[in-house]
Amino acid sequence: MGRILYELAGADPARRFSPYCWRIRMALAHKGLEADCRPWRFTEGQSLAFSGQDKVPVLVDGETVVTDSWAIATYLEAAYPDRPLFPGKPAASRFVVSWADTTLNTQLSRLIVSDIPAWLMPEHREYFRTSREARFGMTLEAVTDGREARLPGFRASLAPLRALVRAQPFLGGDQPDYGDYAVFGSLQWARCVSSLPLLEREDPLRGWRDRMLDLFGGLARAAPHCDAD
Amino acid sequence: MGRILYELAGADPARRFSPYCWRIRMALAHKGLEADCRPWRFTEGQSLAFSGQDKVPVLVDGETVVTDSWAIATYLEAAYPDRPLFPGKPAASRFVVSWADTTLNTQLSRLIVSDIPAWLMPEHREYFRTSREARFGMTLEAVTDGREARLPGFRASLAPLRALVRAQPFLGGDQPDYGDYAVFGSLQWARCVSSLPLLEREDPLRGWRDRMLDLFGGLARAAPHCDAD
Repeated sequence: MGRILYELAGADPARRFSPYCWRIRMALAHKGLEADCRPWRFTEGQSLAFSGQDKVPVLVDGETVVTDSWAIATYLEAAYPDRPLFPGKPAASRFVVSWADTTLNTQLSRLIVSDIPAWLMPEHREYFRTSREARFGMTLEAVTDGREARLPGFRASLAPLRALVRAQPFLGGDQPDYGDYAVFGSLQWARCVSSLPLLEREDPLRGWRDRMLDLFGGLARAAPHCDAD
Repeated sequence: MGRILYELAGADPARRFSPYCWRIRMALAHKGLEADCRPWRFTEGQSLAFSGQDKVPVLVDGETVVTDSWAIATYLEAAYPDRPLFPGKPAASRFVVSWADTTLNTQLSRLIVSDIPAWLMPEHREYFRTSREARFGMTLEAVTDGREARLPGFRASLAPLRALVRAQPFLGGDQPDYGDYAVFGSLQWARCVSSLPLLEREDPLRGWRDRMLDLFGGLARAAPHCDAD
């Protein structure tokens, strides 16, 4: 039985830039599971009709279809208990995931959203702009206006991560776990679409990000990305 | 062999208001361990000389002396493995603790620090004011000036907690764990010294806080506190 992961892609099918899809790409690698990672693009919701909804990531594992990154992660842990993704029950790892979903992604979106349309197929740019501008109540350029001035506040909000990677190599301890993938997915999303320098040169978080980029033979490092430095 | 926990106290020895001491008080109750919880006050550093430093919490467990709340928590887990405080290895729970140490406590301090002197013995107020004003570079009243206007930002920063307690009763899942105690310790600190209404009436975090206050026969609810609502 085949295993397929549908991931958000840009005009270049190799440019995958969803933070939630990156979580699952890393989680599959962590488990040592092969998958056919297929590009999916905005407005192609119909092609996911088999999953009963219209968003990626979607995992097809043999006859099982799972949507939503958290549901996929807990499915993988239950179905493939070797090489645990969670240090115990998944519920106990949920805070860091929730922090990435809210504090981290909300801020990142306000820093980089206007960089995204350039990476999309021309026919998807209008959809992206219209749908996101409706959410924000302003143009994408207005959302990110003055973003350099907001970088210090963004970097300050990473204090919980920074304190942790001073004490241990990964959020999960000596080895990465799903918490690492959840947070890294957000930074990888930014790396794939924006040149904004999110971290200062001396930030100890760079060491952690480098360790994440090196995992699984440099899986994430090899992905098409922007040069931020 | 006796077990003693030294905790920060105000003029009323029953008013314990250190977020880090509350973590350990809750952790001991979680483990079902009795302890003589002794009041300790600012400037009494000499009375902790046996511990090789001058800060609370300090746990004396028979012949073992442990300082620093994280070290105490991991000591308790190793020495008393029944009723686990952590879902797996402690390192994996460290993010939520780090978030409470940084994002949460930094903000709370800027909201409530000027309320603290009133609860101290008169001879400790000057020490508290001088040492904290040197850290902040301004008077305590200047630190908390306009705090009502900062409450919406503070409440927004609790988004990761809020999303989590919508999905599960405790941060640890069906049952509380050390992550719950770390975050709760901060809110209990505020509750013991300040009447500032930190949470809105409809905030789902109130339900979680109530569950925490109810634990262990209402241990934290029974502590001397201010009425915030």
